[in-house]
Amino acid sequence: MSVILLLLALSSTVIALDNGLALTPPMGWLSWERFRCNTDCEGDPENCISENLFRTMADLVVSEGYAAVGYEYINVDDCWLEKNRGPRGELVADRKRFPSGMRALADYVHAKGLKFGIYEDYGNYTCAGYPGILGSSRQDAEQFASWEVDYVKLDGCYSLPTDMDVGYPEFGRHLNRTGRPMVYSCSWPVYQIYAGISPNFTSIIEHCNLWRNFDDIQDSWASLESIIDYYGNNQDYIIPNAGPGHFNDADMLGNFGLSYEQSKTQMALWAILAQPLLMSVDLRTIRPEYKAILQNKKIIAVDQDPLGIQGRRIYKHKGIEIWSRPITPIYQTYYSYAVAFVNRRTDGTPSDVAVTLRELGLQSPTGYRVEDLYEDVDYGVLSPNTKIKVKVNPSGVVILRADVQPERFSKRPLNPFYYRYTKK
Amino acid sequence: MSVILLLLALSSTVIALDNGLALTPPMGWLSWERFRCNTDCEGDPENCISENLFRTMADLVVSEGYAAVGYEYINVDDCWLEKNRGPRGELVADRKRFPSGMRALADYVHAKGLKFGIYEDYGNYTCAGYPGILGSSRQDAEQFASWEVDYVKLDGCYSLPTDMDVGYPEFGRHLNRTGRPMVYSCSWPVYQIYAGISPNFTSIIEHCNLWRNFDDIQDSWASLESIIDYYGNNQDYIIPNAGPGHFNDADMLGNFGLSYEQSKTQMALWAILAQPLLMSVDLRTIRPEYKAILQNKKIIAVDQDPLGIQGRRIYKHKGIEIWSRPITPIYQTYYSYAVAFVNRRTDGTPSDVAVTLRELGLQSPTGYRVEDLYEDVDYGVLSPNTKIKVKVNPSGVVILRADVQPERFSKRPLNPFYYRYTKK
Repeated sequence: MSVILLLLALSSTVIALDNGLALTPPMGWLSWERFRCNTDCEGDPENCISENLFRTMADLVVSEGYAAVGYEYINVDDCWLEKNRGPRGELVADRKRFPSGMRALADYVHAKGLKFGIYEDYGNYTCAGYPGILGSSRQDAEQFASWEVDYVKLDGCYSLPTDMDVGYPEFGRHLNRTGRPMVYSCSWPVYQIYAGISPNFTSIIEHCNLWRNFDDIQDSWASLESIIDYYGNNQDYIIPNAGPGHFNDADMLGNFGLSYEQSKTQMALWAILAQPLLMSVDLRTIRPEYKAILQNKKIIAVDQDPLGIQGRRIYKHKGIEIWSRPITPIYQTYYSYAVAFVNRRTDGTPSDVAVTLRELGLQSPTGYRVEDLYEDVDYGVLSPNTKIKVKVNPSGVVILRADVQPERFSKRPLNPFYYRYTKK
Repeated sequence: MSVILLLLALSSTVIALDNGLALTPPMGWLSWERFRCNTDCEGDPENCISENLFRTMADLVVSEGYAAVGYEYINVDDCWLEKNRGPRGELVADRKRFPSGMRALADYVHAKGLKFGIYEDYGNYTCAGYPGILGSSRQDAEQFASWEVDYVKLDGCYSLPTDMDVGYPEFGRHLNRTGRPMVYSCSWPVYQIYAGISPNFTSIIEHCNLWRNFDDIQDSWASLESIIDYYGNNQDYIIPNAGPGHFNDADMLGNFGLSYEQSKTQMALWAILAQPLLMSVDLRTIRPEYKAILQNKKIIAVDQDPLGIQGRRIYKHKGIEIWSRPITPIYQTYYSYAVAFVNRRTDGTPSDVAVTLRELGLQSPTGYRVEDLYEDVDYGVLSPNTKIKVKVNPSGVVILRADVQPERFSKRPLNPFYYRYTKK
């Protein structure tokens, strides 16, 4: 029964980019937030944007267990190019920092079982002043395909937002015509929103797998809060745009400026919001507790839920927020849910939140199997009238998963059928 | 030589409260930031303000090694009182939450080799609405002495700031007349500053060991930043007031809302600023990396430097700040220094800072032995012209200690004399 309903849910989505990619939000590693445009390979060889950096991160994504939990893209961001195109108008990777060239780097990444992403810009220049694709979009798309690129992030600096409604689809068509499936990540709506233009999301969904719609994330709780608020305050407008193959993109997962609790909050809400999980951290030095957050399989499973529905803020009062996302399994007309309780207060002491499942919108008379996704707590099968009480740390989160049960909840003890049904 | 100069330095300070206490900033544990006014011992027995909580924390301060590095006060904050005084006008601890009474709790703490602190308020009520000392200040001081209290924090809610110039000294005299040495922590200047009154710091220094002069800290980087800015922007006004026996009080050390880097920044700057180190954390659940920050002996040694000089911000530009504190040993006219480099930027990548010792004001021709206080890096003995380069994480810190050398720096290898001289 749940399978049939899942297919129905998928078939009702809007028309989307038909490259077969990003049916769930992409997962991987991206250089920008952590390494920016550091081109000083003489003074800072370990941290500059270079083929060595990406090879090292690809190595670590595999050896440190990130690939095993789903992270697969190794994505280059800005500052990989020479300042000028080559004699035939082709893009050239910086000869000192990428001496083996991008095809060799892609081969290295592919040999690891991973996928390779690259960055360009729709305008005359990238945001850091390297050559953009304007006027060369077909050639550049073909070049990316020849390099065996799997993912293209196309930024929007140095271009006219009014042109984007033509330019972004055009580059997308060039990508598709190469015959190589490449995830297409657009910055199209955010530049239009900044310019006061109301984006044509019907077209954006049709042409892009992902799109940025708000500020770049900075490595601070304040920045993360502003993004959380944007997603909550604009949810009725942006949630309908998300679905398998086409997702809103709230930007990267970072760490320096976030406390342990805050990092847990970001990971939980990114999963609730069906966000790409693009780590921008130094995998050589990341502390083990942050690594454990990024590798939390239960939360990743929420993020990667096949329904691809973006969750929403369902409660906000006195610094306490509750966020909820419908997920599989489905039974009859009832979804399962991931529910995140967020404490935005800063008065230093945990806050108690008590709520019935029914108040959260979990109304199936068959009940829900509820577990905590960070703490090893299994609440068992609860009826909609059960009140659950959680203690949420300041700037922290409690995230629960509630799987709807396929038959009427009874007070019998747990049986093996229940166990198989909900085990991931 | 250094000893003689040290004595000279001490003798030049202003007249201060003569109870012989707080010659260096007090260290201990305080309930407020973490446990607030949680009086719900039925619903939340593990976290309510009760004698059990303070006994548990006293146990952990010893068993987890905090006492061994200098933390000694176990300080009760607001919400320990019954709502009404007893039949003889005496203060009564809450009978349900402190059934053994405060003397028994003090005995428990003393038996652990620790000291016991208590909270009251100069006004009619404490900030949470329990009885204040107004009209009973002599009786209350004597009661605290009879309970063998070692530290009194006197808040300023429900009182007139204009009365404080009389009331705070009066209570201090009552404390002194008991014959029991008790650290006297005042909230006198902060309430006056809020009321637009310019505090009489000559009198405050004479009567108090510590005083709050700015907002209560909240468990967030934004709150910590506001305090850091206050101390930097007002440093010429407040630094002269600090010295052995009398210190500014920037409030507690917390953790939930601070990242690992941010917690390191608070600890380093609290040491630079000669601040009391009053942990307000849950010692039962604190993560090991935060515990290591609180127990960093090298940074505690800076905080507890016997000169008691409060450091200052000596550089601030584009999000990079340098803070510096003169410390022992002294050679001729040259201090040693603790120097903290703080990165207030949030763009996610570490910032390099390069500066000569001379530019930091470290001009002794004999040179300085320089070491990093968080990382295990010993720079050896450096001349004032040496340029040091540090990499500072976003919202993070690098803190160095530079010990002036007692004879002319030469290029000879390190000899045992140097080693003895600088070993802590």
